[in-house]
Amino acid sequence: MHWTASATDGAARAGILATDHGDVPTPAFMPVGTQATVKGLTPAELAGLGAGIVLANAYHLHLRPGSEVVRRLGGLHAFMGWEGPILTDSGGFQVFSLAKLAAIDEDGVTFRSHLDGSTHRFTPELVMEIEAALGADIVMAFDDCAPYPCDEPSARAAMERTARWAERSLAAHARIQAERPWPWRQRLYGIVQGSVYPALRRESARRLAELDLPGYAIGGLSVGEEKALMLDMLEVTVPEMPADRPRYLMGVGFPEDVVAAIARGIDMFDCVAPTRQGRTGAAFTRDGRVNVENARFAEDGQPLDPECECMVCATWSRAYLRHLFKSGEMLGPRLLSHHNVAFLVDLTAEARAAIAAGEFDAWSARWTRRYANTPQAEVSCTS
Amino acid sequence: MHWTASATDGAARAGILATDHGDVPTPAFMPVGTQATVKGLTPAELAGLGAGIVLANAYHLHLRPGSEVVRRLGGLHAFMGWEGPILTDSGGFQVFSLAKLAAIDEDGVTFRSHLDGSTHRFTPELVMEIEAALGADIVMAFDDCAPYPCDEPSARAAMERTARWAERSLAAHARIQAERPWPWRQRLYGIVQGSVYPALRRESARRLAELDLPGYAIGGLSVGEEKALMLDMLEVTVPEMPADRPRYLMGVGFPEDVVAAIARGIDMFDCVAPTRQGRTGAAFTRDGRVNVENARFAEDGQPLDPECECMVCATWSRAYLRHLFKSGEMLGPRLLSHHNVAFLVDLTAEARAAIAAGEFDAWSARWTRRYANTPQAEVSCTS
Repeated sequence: MHWTASATDGAARAGILATDHGDVPTPAFMPVGTQATVKGLTPAELAGLGAGIVLANAYHLHLRPGSEVVRRLGGLHAFMGWEGPILTDSGGFQVFSLAKLAAIDEDGVTFRSHLDGSTHRFTPELVMEIEAALGADIVMAFDDCAPYPCDEPSARAAMERTARWAERSLAAHARIQAERPWPWRQRLYGIVQGSVYPALRRESARRLAELDLPGYAIGGLSVGEEKALMLDMLEVTVPEMPADRPRYLMGVGFPEDVVAAIARGIDMFDCVAPTRQGRTGAAFTRDGRVNVENARFAEDGQPLDPECECMVCATWSRAYLRHLFKSGEMLGPRLLSHHNVAFLVDLTAEARAAIAAGEFDAWSARWTRRYANTPQAEVSCTS
Repeated sequence: MHWTASATDGAARAGILATDHGDVPTPAFMPVGTQATVKGLTPAELAGLGAGIVLANAYHLHLRPGSEVVRRLGGLHAFMGWEGPILTDSGGFQVFSLAKLAAIDEDGVTFRSHLDGSTHRFTPELVMEIEAALGADIVMAFDDCAPYPCDEPSARAAMERTARWAERSLAAHARIQAERPWPWRQRLYGIVQGSVYPALRRESARRLAELDLPGYAIGGLSVGEEKALMLDMLEVTVPEMPADRPRYLMGVGFPEDVVAAIARGIDMFDCVAPTRQGRTGAAFTRDGRVNVENARFAEDGQPLDPECECMVCATWSRAYLRHLFKSGEMLGPRLLSHHNVAFLVDLTAEARAAIAAGEFDAWSARWTRRYANTPQAEVSCTS
């Protein structure tokens, strides 16, 4: 089995995700390495802080340096120097959000690169070729990711197209894996769409489940809707997803969202927040988010989070980290990114232990109360 | 003894610099951590690549975060998390080059901060207080660093003032060390000035030698003069410096300059070149400098320098490093800075071994020929 449950506690699940590049305990936070680098951090650091799997992005890597270049250099693992599992996003989200969209039709999408305006075309089949060239352990189907807000007919059209494209992605993926495999197995995940419409979400999940894929993601959330609405969507969608397959909530999250989503049965997460926030001086701590440039840290000799065991908290004071940011030193963004990624990874490890102990509800209530009820929360919650 | 020779080969010397934070084999390259951080690198990485001692700067740290803040946080070692020896420059060079200079008089210098325009005053006594607060193992006397070019009367005046300020620095240093010592010893080095005038350089070296300081630096070189002129100055100055004290050539260097200066009896070096060059994509290799953004590296799977044993060369290809720079990823500057610092540290280790083996001339000729005679040298030599 690709994923095996080891414990459940209410809807929350702990398990093991097995890949040819190693096993990953779930719930798992996957640091985002869009351009084949988790911004500022080395693979050795990521492994050291406990990350088990990292993300990369087919859209970005296709445009630069080119997926065939990555293939010729031995695939993403060799290229970026990460020996653990990798998941590539298909670029569905980026094509609709980042690129200049020229046209969508039933066959695919024609768009212009956000880098140089050059014209490109993605179809499910072409994206499967790109992801095969990159060589990740888990590859995402090409989906039609509706924007938010989106009226119901448009959301239905995008959801139905996503379902048809998932079938085509699967056929192409199976063909390519048979014709030209890497020495390791690549697994295709489907992406549930449906915007904020419960009926569409349920239908999307059911239609994808028929494809018997090794894993399923929930896409098109955390795109601007209210948090309560996102959680509602999880509650209607998750029960329709196969219980024996891993569930991946795309683009989430912030620590509080990760905890809330684990409670609703999610196993895998990715989000740029830890590194993006870290680059601006915002740090996650068990007592909420803080901005290290705050004047009250000027002579504060304590670690960022006294309970954190990461390299940053073991070595430097808040005063030093503040100095790095005040001085515009590149070590500052690096160290805060490191701490924030470690914080998310540790959070999922704590959640896993709580699930295994059958104490998830008590743990998550305690964790959430402490994280939210803090005089230190100074940073707005938008990413 | 603070410094002990272990081998000599012509004018070149190998030795050990002893401090309360550890011993450093010389010749030694000292990575520059102006603002209490070697740009982009952690102390653990610096130790891992073999750096034995790092630099910080009194001018910068006095302005931000403040030397007394650093003292209250346990001194520079604790503040920046570096357990090895540290040397602080006095700020003489920065006051004359970076700050907006208001006025110099016999007692000291009044200047405006390059950060916020605020007015400050440095005297030898005040600078000794600042460097005592920072707590480095080696502190530099406050000097009057003449610009280049500089007419001889002005150069003489600056050299003579430097000699008088060195006496005052020593008196203040001795008083402060007696009154308020750290648990480790701080040692004061003098700085030879005299611009490009041999008679002034000789006189400066002789006058400073009378102070019987534990070490001596050569300042005011590598400030725009031709390289041959810099080497001429070393040849006239070094013989006047005490043979049993370490000799530190400030602000040098580029690899080829380090080799040439070791040949002339220099033991210690510092330069921002490895990190500054690294941030722009320029890498030192045994075959000369290369710019990793060069198109010919697009699919080059080799390490930056196949003979280099640093973490970067052990892990990533030229193609990947090029991709990082082309993509504007912060890991690129970090990794090239790491490699370049490792390259300088390795270079001094190779020189040391050659001196110990009595083969320095042959080694340096071979090294210099290979480094210079390369189709890869694409980057101009100005720092």
